[in-house]
Amino acid sequence: CEGDRGREWAHHGASMFADLTPNEMRDVRDYLQGKPELGLTAARGKSLKKNSILLMELHLPRKHEALRALDRGQAKPMRQARVVVQFGNQSQPNITEIIVSPLPFPTSYREKTFKGDKPIRFESRPITEAEYSHIIGILQKITAKVHKVLFETTGGFSFHNCTDRCLTFADIAPRGLESGERRTWIMLQKFVEGYFIHPVGFEVLVNHKDLNPERWTVEKVWYNGQYFDKVEELADQYEKGTLEKVKLPDHDDKDLYSTYIPRGHSNTRTDIHGPKLVEPQGPRYHVDGNFVEYAGWSFAFRVRSSAGLQIFDLRFNGERIAYEVSLQEAIAFYSGDTPAAMQTKYIDAGWAMGTLDYELAPGIDCPEIATFLDLHHYYDTDKPVHYKNALCVFEMTTGMPLRRHFNNNFQGGYNFFGGLENHVLVLRTTSTVYNYDYIWDFLFYQNGVMESRVSATGYIHATFFTPNGLHYGSKVYNYVLGNLHTHLIHYKVDLDIAGRKNSFESMNLKYVNFTNPWSHKHSVVQSKLVKTQHQTERGAAFRFGKKFPRYVHFYNPNEKNKWGHQKGYRIQYNSHADSVLPRGWMEENGISWSRYPLAVTRHKDSEPTSSSIYTQNDPWEPVVSFEDYIRNDESIINQDLVAWVTVGFLHVPHSEDIPNTATPGNAVGFFLRPFNFFDEDPSLASRSTVIVRQVKEGKPKVQRWTPEVVGHCVTDRPFFYNGTYAGV
Amino acid sequence: CEGDRGREWAHHGASMFADLTPNEMRDVRDYLQGKPELGLTAARGKSLKKNSILLMELHLPRKHEALRALDRGQAKPMRQARVVVQFGNQSQPNITEIIVSPLPFPTSYREKTFKGDKPIRFESRPITEAEYSHIIGILQKITAKVHKVLFETTGGFSFHNCTDRCLTFADIAPRGLESGERRTWIMLQKFVEGYFIHPVGFEVLVNHKDLNPERWTVEKVWYNGQYFDKVEELADQYEKGTLEKVKLPDHDDKDLYSTYIPRGHSNTRTDIHGPKLVEPQGPRYHVDGNFVEYAGWSFAFRVRSSAGLQIFDLRFNGERIAYEVSLQEAIAFYSGDTPAAMQTKYIDAGWAMGTLDYELAPGIDCPEIATFLDLHHYYDTDKPVHYKNALCVFEMTTGMPLRRHFNNNFQGGYNFFGGLENHVLVLRTTSTVYNYDYIWDFLFYQNGVMESRVSATGYIHATFFTPNGLHYGSKVYNYVLGNLHTHLIHYKVDLDIAGRKNSFESMNLKYVNFTNPWSHKHSVVQSKLVKTQHQTERGAAFRFGKKFPRYVHFYNPNEKNKWGHQKGYRIQYNSHADSVLPRGWMEENGISWSRYPLAVTRHKDSEPTSSSIYTQNDPWEPVVSFEDYIRNDESIINQDLVAWVTVGFLHVPHSEDIPNTATPGNAVGFFLRPFNFFDEDPSLASRSTVIVRQVKEGKPKVQRWTPEVVGHCVTDRPFFYNGTYAGV
Ligand SMILES: [Ca+2]
Ligand SMILES: [Ca+2]
Ligand SMILES: [Ca+2]
Ligand SMILES: [Ca+2]
Ligand SMILES: [Cu+2]
Ligand SMILES: [Cu+2]
Repeated sequence: CEGDRGREWAHHGASMFADLTPNEMRDVRDYLQGKPELGLTAARGKSLKKNSILLMELHLPRKHEALRALDRGQAKPMRQARVVVQFGNQSQPNITEIIVSPLPFPTSYREKTFKGDKPIRFESRPITEAEYSHIIGILQKITAKVHKVLFETTGGFSFHNCTDRCLTFADIAPRGLESGERRTWIMLQKFVEGYFIHPVGFEVLVNHKDLNPERWTVEKVWYNGQYFDKVEELADQYEKGTLEKVKLPDHDDKDLYSTYIPRGHSNTRTDIHGPKLVEPQGPRYHVDGNFVEYAGWSFAFRVRSSAGLQIFDLRFNGERIAYEVSLQEAIAFYSGDTPAAMQTKYIDAGWAMGTLDYELAPGIDCPEIATFLDLHHYYDTDKPVHYKNALCVFEMTTGMPLRRHFNNNFQGGYNFFGGLENHVLVLRTTSTVYNYDYIWDFLFYQNGVMESRVSATGYIHATFFTPNGLHYGSKVYNYVLGNLHTHLIHYKVDLDIAGRKNSFESMNLKYVNFTNPWSHKHSVVQSKLVKTQHQTERGAAFRFGKKFPRYVHFYNPNEKNKWGHQKGYRIQYNSHADSVLPRGWMEENGISWSRYPLAVTRHKDSEPTSSSIYTQNDPWEPVVSFEDYIRNDESIINQDLVAWVTVGFLHVPHSEDIPNTATPGNAVGFFLRPFNFFDEDPSLASRSTVIVRQVKEGKPKVQRWTPEVVGHCVTDRPFFYNGTYAGV
Repeated sequence: CEGDRGREWAHHGASMFADLTPNEMRDVRDYLQGKPELGLTAARGKSLKKNSILLMELHLPRKHEALRALDRGQAKPMRQARVVVQFGNQSQPNITEIIVSPLPFPTSYREKTFKGDKPIRFESRPITEAEYSHIIGILQKITAKVHKVLFETTGGFSFHNCTDRCLTFADIAPRGLESGERRTWIMLQKFVEGYFIHPVGFEVLVNHKDLNPERWTVEKVWYNGQYFDKVEELADQYEKGTLEKVKLPDHDDKDLYSTYIPRGHSNTRTDIHGPKLVEPQGPRYHVDGNFVEYAGWSFAFRVRSSAGLQIFDLRFNGERIAYEVSLQEAIAFYSGDTPAAMQTKYIDAGWAMGTLDYELAPGIDCPEIATFLDLHHYYDTDKPVHYKNALCVFEMTTGMPLRRHFNNNFQGGYNFFGGLENHVLVLRTTSTVYNYDYIWDFLFYQNGVMESRVSATGYIHATFFTPNGLHYGSKVYNYVLGNLHTHLIHYKVDLDIAGRKNSFESMNLKYVNFTNPWSHKHSVVQSKLVKTQHQTERGAAFRFGKKFPRYVHFYNPNEKNKWGHQKGYRIQYNSHADSVLPRGWMEENGISWSRYPLAVTRHKDSEPTSSSIYTQNDPWEPVVSFEDYIRNDESIINQDLVAWVTVGFLHVPHSEDIPNTATPGNAVGFFLRPFNFFDEDPSLASRSTVIVRQVKEGKPKVQRWTPEVVGHCVTDRPFFYNGTYAGV
């Protein structure tokens, strides 16, 4: 039958979206390294003047080719790899992206171009381990010159020649103020557990644009609120006593401040395990490679090295809802009083946040019952890197019903009670971007609702406290300011509602006022639905600060449900986002997607992502600019549409962010909700429903399709429900 | 020590807030029925011309008296009951509220007055079973006259003399268009499973104001889009064929449409139990009567018959955060094309939604491991009514960490990995208000965050389909329209942040622009915190449609945390609410609280609630009007403040609301989040934290304070974490 064939094709096609295998990675590496014209050398060598592979990942097939396999079971397009090569060993260094094909036995490569044939500036590349090793080198030289300043200020900590009282550093991005610059504010911190929240009041601006690290320079120094042009100037003035010194309180190794070590007491026990999830009769979902099935859902997934989790070919009961739902970018733009704080505008794809998905701990990061899967990335490396248990999939109960009704008979009893427990499948990875830990979830509910959610945890990005800093955050420790910042997350949602041809409308309410038809001296005032069909991309780009529609609705104008409504889905926001900079202001050009909580474009294979790994280090003239996608203002009626969704929140740190931001209340995202897509709630397919009917005499009659007893790990007693209420 | 004493007093004082016991209820009933001057008779007698008790519940002690017990361990004030008496058996019938004291052996009673000494109109009282019995009576007469119309229209259903093909009805409120009216639109439905979504196209307006049901009249009839002044007129015209008849499709008993019976298929198994919660080492919370402790939390609870769940004396580590957090009202205002649809403005306290908390099913409504508690209500009854398992308390895992951090060493390993699983205590009741089921949750996170949340499920309120109805919703069945409506929920949040004296400010961001201190040719543009202290009640009443502040912050100006910040909490919204009618328009006067997502007032014992059970049937001149609380525009600086919070969402029904609205995506509420209240995250007290440190050789070192093995129901294998990532 049709449904089975669809399922087979979905399964068949999923591997088109599977990340490169280690073998494929090695094959591509070897193939490219065998091309003399590229002159590739190992990536991990310390020289910056070399040609080497920076990143390698799957290159997605073109959509219409992939759909041939997914919708018609035809042959899958050949697999390809996208390789980012840094050509440092030439007079005009550049970054070039190369498509290698076919896999697993490559025979050709070609250059990949960006929209408008924009070149990739060499200065916009991410920082590699090699470059960090030189940064550590120059920091050693710098800190040697101010050893006394640092040692006295911190009460014995130093960057070089230290044993247990060491300093470490955080580097701020972007790295300059204009395109083509590569100069970084670096902030020193005590190297103790949780060093992110131990700034010591010393920041230094290093220019490291030159590929010869010997020619790197210090451009500015900041110490305890004071700027100096040279490190020596700080050292001199410190010696002379012509600056304002600061001495941190004696370092107390017993102060648990930044650590996870428990302290304080609780009314109730915590030294036993809290509630845990079990699967009394085993898992109810299937994972086969990167293909997942649960309830009516099926989808494929991958984790790209730049921005992370993506799902493809999202279907319910074999019918497509989205071709792609994927994370595009995560940013955190800060404010503060120190140069590091003012400068911090983290744009995390530029830190390869997709590769920062380290091992998930069972029982903490994901329930013990989760399926843990490994990932591989090829980034700043000479061989594939294996990330064990980097992704998890699990089903959980939300502890509440998906639906329930007590059908009262108003005589102390009921006609029926019915209910279905709410279960959800969760697909999860994390990104530990230095201090912060993002938890990326896609959730699949049994009733055709899909949720995308990001939760924030990990350490805050904190700077040295100055009184003026209180305009930009809270004091969270003796000498530490938690700086205010806004988190924004961008998602691509290539909805394909029952096919590629979709339209988009927004819905609002308007009061109408008319004579009451049954009492003519009165008026009726009530709300009426006002639907606005959005014709072109510009008209469907909603700005922050403007009123957002009550409903945003994507539908297939050519497909109707049983009751004559066009099949549709809507996006429901759970977000407290706002824009982070005035439109067009410097770095804002790099994140033009952040202007819009929602923008709708016509799908283009040439517009695969809204950001790139190059934005962080050149946000001023970005290689990928989302604004370009809507500039041509194409028609979006009955077209292949893509929704671009921005969510986020303002984070003003407070004492309770110590030691870490906690997840409760710090989750944002959006729901994809069916709106007349199905004929009725598709979770009616679940046999986990329980119906109880009161009978004249004796025990209520329970109608169910699952075992009467859950199992001894939950309870040995069969389900029981009475439902009556009676006078006593 | 101080903390222990605080805990003891909290425990000691909790019983002040405990609902009346059945014995107390009987004592009060007997005491009042023994007062000849009241002339009370049984409530359940069919006469409407009688004096009888309508409702009885705890009368709360005055706050300053309660605080003497809670803060100083002094004697508790005497318990009192509040009794609503309907005096129908007198020339000017009225409703009087009476305070009876002391309990359990009452010796006196006095009349309770409302703000401004507003009297309670007799017509504003809720409908009792007695009145419903007469409504059924008049419906029998009415439907007898149009038996043929109904029988032919529905294909064999009738209201009277039916066996298996019966009709039932839904009554709409408010009951009229002006204060003092009591006339109700009644809609007929097929009496089948899920009758709420089986309207048959017949609606009738019955005037039932007279206390003699023999004098009740029919004022209007609506049939298939046509209005008639009399039932006979409809019957005549139907007979003559001078109206537009409708014949519903043949009733198909096998059509599962409105039922819970599973149908359709799913990719994966659902006939086995999904994941369940277990407590491998037993519960980690305490419940003693109405006093609950969990992590650092303690609170008391009750469920009042009008509006439901309340918590009192909410503390963390013995320090008060709120004196009261409670549900006040839930409304659903509809739009539509039939008179019933246009008229529907449900204001659920008027249906005694606090009493509609029927039995919770284990494994569906609450996890099997929950503690289920019974409640008692005294409403429209002659004896206390016992509601078995009407409230549940449980701890659950959210399936994610509360905090986690992977502290990368950037050499394929890590300095440490730390994490704490996120657990939360849930306190839950439900209200099945006829068709709808609300799930009321208060959630207590280990890190001092508290969440109030309502989830909506149950049947939609649907009306007969007409083409014009499509302006007001979706067609969800052959002849059924799902009508658009807005749900709004009102909460009272009497925050007492570390004491009664609090102040309130809002925070916004403003761009500042200044010369870059380290590059004078450039400017810095960044966001700065702008705090606005709100001086008076009017200035702290935020209107829907206006921009809401980024943060709303309540703090104690007299108490600071360790870092010098005033101890505070903020309210974070999770809501999509908007106002439902123009300000001052007819029924809107009854719900003036709904003008404001947030309003802040000075606490008054005389302003205990924002609504009453009388609003539903007289919203035009309400006894309790929230607007009165802010009219005097008192100072709110360093005062006992109360935050009044409105949340909600627009619900445009769609096919997936069949058979029921599902909870995913249909939950709104708010968080109470500490903001510099503590010195650091109080969940650091949890011994459930796990820390892993990589060691040079061998297995990573796990530091933990809980048993290494969770237990055989979860996994027999000890926790394991490696954390390295390596080239392959
Ligand atoms: Ca375009
Ligand atoms: Ca599309
Ligand atoms: Ca006032
Ligand atoms: Ca207060
Ligand atoms: Cu943050
Ligand atoms: Cu609703």
